[in-house]
Amino acid sequence: MSHPRVTGVGVTPFGEHSERTGRDLFAEAGLAALDDSGVDPDDVEALFYGNFMGELAEHQGHQAPLMAEAVGLDVPATRYEAACASSGAAVREAVRHLRSGEADVILVGGSERMTNIGTAGATDALSIAADDLYEIRAGMTFPGAYALMARAYFREFGGSREDLAAIAVKNHDHALPNEYAQLRKEITVEDALGAPMVADPLGLYDACPITDGASAVVLTSAEYAAEHDLDASVAITGTGQGGDNLALHDRENLARSPAAEKAADEAYADAGVGPDEVDIAEVHDCFTIAEVLAIESLGLYEPGDGIAAARDGKTHATGETPVNLSGGLKAKGHPVGATGVAQIVSLTKVLRGESPWSDDVGGASVGVAHNAGGTVASATVHVLEVQP
Amino acid sequence: MSHPRVTGVGVTPFGEHSERTGRDLFAEAGLAALDDSGVDPDDVEALFYGNFMGELAEHQGHQAPLMAEAVGLDVPATRYEAACASSGAAVREAVRHLRSGEADVILVGGSERMTNIGTAGATDALSIAADDLYEIRAGMTFPGAYALMARAYFREFGGSREDLAAIAVKNHDHALPNEYAQLRKEITVEDALGAPMVADPLGLYDACPITDGASAVVLTSAEYAAEHDLDASVAITGTGQGGDNLALHDRENLARSPAAEKAADEAYADAGVGPDEVDIAEVHDCFTIAEVLAIESLGLYEPGDGIAAARDGKTHATGETPVNLSGGLKAKGHPVGATGVAQIVSLTKVLRGESPWSDDVGGASVGVAHNAGGTVASATVHVLEVQP
Repeated sequence: MSHPRVTGVGVTPFGEHSERTGRDLFAEAGLAALDDSGVDPDDVEALFYGNFMGELAEHQGHQAPLMAEAVGLDVPATRYEAACASSGAAVREAVRHLRSGEADVILVGGSERMTNIGTAGATDALSIAADDLYEIRAGMTFPGAYALMARAYFREFGGSREDLAAIAVKNHDHALPNEYAQLRKEITVEDALGAPMVADPLGLYDACPITDGASAVVLTSAEYAAEHDLDASVAITGTGQGGDNLALHDRENLARSPAAEKAADEAYADAGVGPDEVDIAEVHDCFTIAEVLAIESLGLYEPGDGIAAARDGKTHATGETPVNLSGGLKAKGHPVGATGVAQIVSLTKVLRGESPWSDDVGGASVGVAHNAGGTVASATVHVLEVQP
Repeated sequence: MSHPRVTGVGVTPFGEHSERTGRDLFAEAGLAALDDSGVDPDDVEALFYGNFMGELAEHQGHQAPLMAEAVGLDVPATRYEAACASSGAAVREAVRHLRSGEADVILVGGSERMTNIGTAGATDALSIAADDLYEIRAGMTFPGAYALMARAYFREFGGSREDLAAIAVKNHDHALPNEYAQLRKEITVEDALGAPMVADPLGLYDACPITDGASAVVLTSAEYAAEHDLDASVAITGTGQGGDNLALHDRENLARSPAAEKAADEAYADAGVGPDEVDIAEVHDCFTIAEVLAIESLGLYEPGDGIAAARDGKTHATGETPVNLSGGLKAKGHPVGATGVAQIVSLTKVLRGESPWSDDVGGASVGVAHNAGGTVASATVHVLEVQP
């Protein structure tokens, strides 16, 4: 079994594009990925596409063939939906198809439009990643759910709003040189602590923004990349996925994310690497506390130790294991269906040496992507490695 | 490469279950499939789940982990969405994973709730399988779209409302002994012609009903089925998928379905069988004209010849190649996300000799399932074969 290669990457700028259609956004990302790859578009065999709230935000289901057409591809196209992990799930399935020989070239991507339905509309649309019968109807929203998780974490392990603020500050700093990021604005711990409270202990700066955008990668078999002289420098060597109960009341411990732990275990075993070998990570920091849970799920920190990582500078570009060099969901933005693939794009750029941060993490050769859906009822983890 | 086996099947009764939750429906089908298979639930590695309109009908996205929990499975769970071909797409991905060795046991299923939002709500929700910008906003609905396709067919090849009525009569007749069917009611050509017109030339009896229901199959690798002494008598030997432009105005010929033709070509090549070897078919007859397009796409009839097949008795249980022995979408019902897997359930029952129609088609050993999304902008085709 040889490892599929990331031969091309593309993203739109993340931000407010309420005047653009979804197909317009995805075409930009998809064509950019095809251009970057240099693959013959006629060789693309399928589109695996992630989207979460198109039914509510665009009154448009069945988006995958629409997006294939937008990119000019006459191929089978399927949408994957696992809430905010939708395009992570698409990446996983593509990896498994490519390495098993079921396909040689797959365009994988995702997109989301959110700003056109406003903050209240987007908050409602996001809520359907939780359990409608038992959570949403009781008034739960995602800031509220992650606030519960933060409180559970603080109770079990300790931690403070200052610790969370340090994560926001770091990710804003990382986003500064990212031309595709939504929030390119330096902030301080004081800014974060002084921002309006959303759901105690989470304030406005603990939450990612509402974002429009699209992302795409061309994944090919190693053999195809070699035969066609494509950039085969970055491989996806491990894939994992985990699931959990949708409703928080069915969880044993809100301070842990077993779905992500399972996904990480599977991905590491698959790649034959361990967390000690990880150089960089892109994780699903929809809220600052989510980054803490993510880096612990990935085994980069023991449970209870992740909370201090940003405060101590360990996850900054200048630290031992930089996390979210792209700016993360927090500052890069979070167009839901595009996020999982955007993480692959970001890691690939760093590993190829094409990121503004590449020099700061010179020699990085192993990256991990952690994409989570809902309150981590779905999670995918992928290991990317530079190939000799 | 050995062919995955259908080791267990389960469906709920199709009909109006507006008082039941989606998780309740899927649990019934999923547990029935596990029971039928005899597989150890701890061996199930994933749930591949199809759903189309959950966001609009149930205010519930991220349904796959919810459905895994409902069946009592702690496994990764992903939703596949390709409009009305959603669970057909899930079957396809499961087949490719099983035969390549990426997994040994996958629960594949789908469900839909539709009646709780009423006819107008369901019609609106179904419409998002078409192009929102260019079709839905112009007032197009699916009866209207298929009426255009029927008119194009009549213009090119001839045909009449009587020909279409014969399809409805046949499928109602087939549904009579199907205890899971929604419309177990004998009708005549006169009944169909006398029913209210919906979109000329399609009347009420040319359209499938609005349906709640769920379906599930346990698919395993051939090796797993053999090792665990499961029923391995029915294999999925071929899979194909095709895509097309979403909007009808982008199609060259409304009387043909190239996405389904591509899916069929791929599935036949995959299985190494041709249309001449097909004994029975379950096809996506959301409207009577859709059955005509389907059997032509499958190569069972040349373009223009499919229109007469039901009228001439060829597609009846007593005919040469029975089509939709389950009653089809027309009479069995069409809970959108459940339909693709329900077709696999129906074919498996006939091929196993467990259908009320099995005696009438004694010796049937090759079945084909044709699942279509939207105006056939997505299509999957699967070939099932009795194994020696």
